[in-house]
Amino acid sequence: MIKVAIFGGSGYTGFELLRILGNHHFVEVLTITSRQHKGCKIEEVFPGLNRLSKLAFEDHANSTSLQKADIIFSALPHHTSMEIVPNLIKNGKRVIDLSADFRLKDADIYEAWYGKHIAKGLLKKAVYGLSELYRDKIKHAELIANPGCYPTGAILALAPLLKAGIIDTDGIIIDSKSGISGAGRAASLDTSFAEVNEGFKAYKVGEHRHMPEIEQEISLIAGKDIKITFTPHLLPVNRGILSTIYTSIKSQKPAPAVSKQGSKAQGQKEMVFDTYKKYYNGEFFVRILPDGIYPNISQVKGSNFCDIGFKVDERTGRLIVITAIDNLVKGASGQAVQNMNIMLGIPETTGLVMPPLSV
Amino acid sequence: MIKVAIFGGSGYTGFELLRILGNHHFVEVLTITSRQHKGCKIEEVFPGLNRLSKLAFEDHANSTSLQKADIIFSALPHHTSMEIVPNLIKNGKRVIDLSADFRLKDADIYEAWYGKHIAKGLLKKAVYGLSELYRDKIKHAELIANPGCYPTGAILALAPLLKAGIIDTDGIIIDSKSGISGAGRAASLDTSFAEVNEGFKAYKVGEHRHMPEIEQEISLIAGKDIKITFTPHLLPVNRGILSTIYTSIKSQKPAPAVSKQGSKAQGQKEMVFDTYKKYYNGEFFVRILPDGIYPNISQVKGSNFCDIGFKVDERTGRLIVITAIDNLVKGASGQAVQNMNIMLGIPETTGLVMPPLSV
Amino acid sequence: MIKVAIFGGSGYTGFELLRILGNHHFVEVLTITSRQHKGCKIEEVFPGLNRLSKLAFEDHANSTSLQKADIIFSALPHHTSMEIVPNLIKNGKRVIDLSADFRLKDADIYEAWYGKHIAKGLLKKAVYGLSELYRDKIKHAELIANPGCYPTGAILALAPLLKAGIIDTDGIIIDSKSGISGAGRAASLDTSFAEVNEGFKAYKVGEHRHMPEIEQEISLIAGKDIKITFTPHLLPVNRGILSTIYTSIKSQKPAPAVSKQGSKAQGQKEMVFDTYKKYYNGEFFVRILPDGIYPNISQVKGSNFCDIGFKVDERTGRLIVITAIDNLVKGASGQAVQNMNIMLGIPETTGLVMPPLSV
Amino acid sequence: MIKVAIFGGSGYTGFELLRILGNHHFVEVLTITSRQHKGCKIEEVFPGLNRLSKLAFEDHANSTSLQKADIIFSALPHHTSMEIVPNLIKNGKRVIDLSADFRLKDADIYEAWYGKHIAKGLLKKAVYGLSELYRDKIKHAELIANPGCYPTGAILALAPLLKAGIIDTDGIIIDSKSGISGAGRAASLDTSFAEVNEGFKAYKVGEHRHMPEIEQEISLIAGKDIKITFTPHLLPVNRGILSTIYTSIKSQKPAPAVSKQGSKAQGQKEMVFDTYKKYYNGEFFVRILPDGIYPNISQVKGSNFCDIGFKVDERTGRLIVITAIDNLVKGASGQAVQNMNIMLGIPETTGLVMPPLSV
Repeated sequence: MIKVAIFGGSGYTGFELLRILGNHHFVEVLTITSRQHKGCKIEEVFPGLNRLSKLAFEDHANSTSLQKADIIFSALPHHTSMEIVPNLIKNGKRVIDLSADFRLKDADIYEAWYGKHIAKGLLKKAVYGLSELYRDKIKHAELIANPGCYPTGAILALAPLLKAGIIDTDGIIIDSKSGISGAGRAASLDTSFAEVNEGFKAYKVGEHRHMPEIEQEISLIAGKDIKITFTPHLLPVNRGILSTIYTSIKSQKPAPAVSKQGSKAQGQKEMVFDTYKKYYNGEFFVRILPDGIYPNISQVKGSNFCDIGFKVDERTGRLIVITAIDNLVKGASGQAVQNMNIMLGIPETTGLVMPPLSV
Repeated sequence: MIKVAIFGGSGYTGFELLRILGNHHFVEVLTITSRQHKGCKIEEVFPGLNRLSKLAFEDHANSTSLQKADIIFSALPHHTSMEIVPNLIKNGKRVIDLSADFRLKDADIYEAWYGKHIAKGLLKKAVYGLSELYRDKIKHAELIANPGCYPTGAILALAPLLKAGIIDTDGIIIDSKSGISGAGRAASLDTSFAEVNEGFKAYKVGEHRHMPEIEQEISLIAGKDIKITFTPHLLPVNRGILSTIYTSIKSQKPAPAVSKQGSKAQGQKEMVFDTYKKYYNGEFFVRILPDGIYPNISQVKGSNFCDIGFKVDERTGRLIVITAIDNLVKGASGQAVQNMNIMLGIPETTGLVMPPLSV
Repeated sequence: MIKVAIFGGSGYTGFELLRILGNHHFVEVLTITSRQHKGCKIEEVFPGLNRLSKLAFEDHANSTSLQKADIIFSALPHHTSMEIVPNLIKNGKRVIDLSADFRLKDADIYEAWYGKHIAKGLLKKAVYGLSELYRDKIKHAELIANPGCYPTGAILALAPLLKAGIIDTDGIIIDSKSGISGAGRAASLDTSFAEVNEGFKAYKVGEHRHMPEIEQEISLIAGKDIKITFTPHLLPVNRGILSTIYTSIKSQKPAPAVSKQGSKAQGQKEMVFDTYKKYYNGEFFVRILPDGIYPNISQVKGSNFCDIGFKVDERTGRLIVITAIDNLVKGASGQAVQNMNIMLGIPETTGLVMPPLSV
Repeated sequence: MIKVAIFGGSGYTGFELLRILGNHHFVEVLTITSRQHKGCKIEEVFPGLNRLSKLAFEDHANSTSLQKADIIFSALPHHTSMEIVPNLIKNGKRVIDLSADFRLKDADIYEAWYGKHIAKGLLKKAVYGLSELYRDKIKHAELIANPGCYPTGAILALAPLLKAGIIDTDGIIIDSKSGISGAGRAASLDTSFAEVNEGFKAYKVGEHRHMPEIEQEISLIAGKDIKITFTPHLLPVNRGILSTIYTSIKSQKPAPAVSKQGSKAQGQKEMVFDTYKKYYNGEFFVRILPDGIYPNISQVKGSNFCDIGFKVDERTGRLIVITAIDNLVKGASGQAVQNMNIMLGIPETTGLVMPPLSV
């Protein structure tokens, strides 16, 4: 049995780690920490896990558990994570960090968006844990920077197109809509039921911290600096992120072989579909939807899938790509477990073949 | 008392007309028709209106009521409306039609999107009932084509910018999110609670019938043909449309006088704000939000307001405009009553100063 | 114009008072206070009221406004209210208090449920503001103790039956379900969106503070001590309370005249219906539903109505009464305005003929 | 591998069977039928199951599949099920029927509530599939009548109390609240999003078909005829049933040993708790909650758990029991799989240790 420890596990990502790892045949959770809930049994904080876990929250992972742990998940908030992770790494632990602390390669960018960084030395070592893109590096990583929820869906949608060089790198717009659990579990008027229910709004327009993370990753893929327009919105649902991405198919590309139907849009449609199919060939968790079918967050809820659909709009020359994930699963804890599986060399889908709770 | 008749009133727009007109001091509803519910008392179809209306649904408006009616609201579906309206007009009635039948000036475009038109002669006569833009024409109109729900918010947001010529007419993207009542009251698996709740999806991407309507109107304002990218989405809420509109401030414009803060974005921000404030000066139902505040559909729910906020994104040169309305009020029945007020020369806000039910 | 002041107006009941009084033709709100939001414009706290109110929150009502005020609404929390109200009364103001501080006649009971009372002298003076039951006393009251949300619907449902003496006073069960706004506006994990949405639970079973309030009032009506079983539940909706009340028709009553249909249940049904119709004859805000129709909170949402439906269950001899109100309107601010209208001798429905926002 | 066939699988219980059986290590689904969707791939009807199932819907199960099937789940509606099941039984198949057709032992009662029964001969043979109560009979059953959703939670809550003889059998009230999926997947105005959302109502008060089913089962347990009062309500959530059950602890019982705390209620509380703990000792899927903790449907969502909490109300002598299940899992497909496991002699929790999706 692989032994894991979870730091800072009393939030929604902690719940998800327990939910997923509880059905993972090769894993035992040795310890879970929470300063706020130390001493509480799991079911006092997460009543749904009654009977499914015998753990209690500890203030700090006790040293015995820690010593035995093969993998450590850190679900601590940013800034807190960077205080704890360096020591774990120094002690030879492999860490999957769900905070933002090690995602941005450039310390200056981190500090511009999040404030002071006190463990810059680890930024180089950290592997960005987008499983489908960085599987090889993840395999041998000591420290995984598990991707943000918005970036996960957006990058998975853009990567194949940028890699294939078939879209313009200028003018990309990402219009994202996220369920409330993305804001975390701390009580706040902004996430109070009566304030959110039957509402819908944009927030932090062009100013969200996941913007530089997306830009870093798609720039790396494209091999050039890309600036995006990013507008997050708050959906009155528990889970799910749907991003509607606007881009254009490169006009200077040699015209794709015109299909039997003959229209330019048809040819482009096939080109885009083929690009996705090829790029994600064999990837269990990425589902490319057929023509005319668009993702719905309800169809990924509770699962580790990322659904991608698209539309070539012949009238305007735009390519509209739509992507849906469960922000707590593929956008956080599910991908963290996927990365753990990769690190351990066990089948990547272990514990993660969870059908969505569509209804 | 002004006397009105409502045709096809058993859907959500019919309910809204009754809800609003019930508090309109100058209006009496003489008759309301519904083929499906003929003979039913209002409260049998709309239990909430128990005690507030003594009407019963009639199959056809009886001729006495009809003769006495000053204004007729048609809440019939498209195609049905065009069968009935011509005769009403011929009999000297003034009609406010909430269907799509008379919105598109070009019969060919109508037929491409909706199918055969059998009352083309009225297309010229019909006035597009966006109250703030066409007040003068509405005043004397015989036939009002009440705007679609998506177009209302989108056009109100774009008109001032296009009129002032400060944005590019190319590349406009409208990413819209609508509550379920926009799909009407007919039972369908697509709008069943368990199918929609906790879900979110795009639909009819680049293929929604409100697209040509928006294009017609903004092209008229800009004085040139505009093609837009339009992506509607379905929100799991009862009411409300929020549209996030992406455009760019014209680069060839003489640079706006740089503000005290000095940045280019700051100057652009002031220019956009001033453009809106000037255009909507004195307009009760359009609220331009201050810097950093974005609309929320909950803040217009049940009201006739259209809220508009925006962001100048200096990094990418984009202007992002966000607009929110209640699709059943400003997007349908509220605007219809506003148009009636204009037609009758009574204060435009009569019966419409309804605070939103924000919570 | 009647001049009013609102104390502690930044919560949901404060919002509702502004929403309702904004459409009240005889009232001007002079001042509104909020310690937390002092200095903020109304629309900074309640964006939906942008353009509808020019007020700003004050720390304390300034003395000039206070001197001019005819009526003072206190929406302060319990314990805070009793610190402020005595002085207002001493200065000759008429006060409508929305807190629990003056609802319970017996100071000992208050202190058992809420803690120390420091203004016991006012308990005798305070009139319990259930408008339909205490209209005559309300007319001349100096201090109104506006009823709690759960008690309002429950007492309105039980009063006619108890008054007529047709039900057993033993064994009454009230199973209530309330929307989240009933918990107030303060941020708390218990009312966080993701914790509440898609959930449903009972809370404070047999221990809710509204239980002694209900018992006090129904005991007064019945002329004997009544103990009830009261189970509140939390509904994942913004507004509305539905209470399902279980009681039994007295067996010792002389058998009601058997109706034409002849069954005992039919006779009892008619007796109950008549009892309600007679008791609430002429009451605008109480709607007795016909046979087989049960209330739905959506049909009272945003309105001051209390809907009552019932079922005589012949198999078990039970009478099941179901009642629905909007907890923020008839259950709080709407009833407060109704009481104000009564106190001022103006038509009781002034400002309160608001159709529900059923959809 | 155990081979199963699913009849009538395009509704919500069909989806759940696929969702659950997809993670059941010993089972292979050979065929699934749907008249309406014949020929459609699974993911065309249930997009969330894309990649998780290779099946397509068949009009009728083809005879080869049928011949190979060890177990047949019938998710057909009542009346349709009784047309098909007899032939399956005759051909030696073991059938788990999720309809109401074989739940009521007394054909007259069936016909009074559901209409004509054409397979009365099977009523005796059918085993009522409440797993925890009838495990021994289920083991060898040819035909399982899988319990209704309301009855499952209610009977599990009442059985231990009735078996122990500690509650009055008269006057039991079951106040139930169900999520919308309980109404099935067919489109209807009654289950349309905008009609249901933000609403809450009772329906079929004292007239719901699950009432005789509950009465049959609890009468059997108590060894005497019991009549209940049953009020179902519709909750605006996808999944979950919470039932609040009112009963009384028998006064003629010899007083329970007074606990250390000394109060009578404390003694009763311990008696009730012990009764439950003893009855459900070793039962994985029934969780008895500690004092002061009440069930929440969100804590069982997606899982096969039945949570039970209770309150002894000393003031009124009542015992209030609250029970929560997921109507589609323990209330339908989950319990069906649990029954299958029992029938096959494999570990009863196989495929069913699904943690709830509490958020």
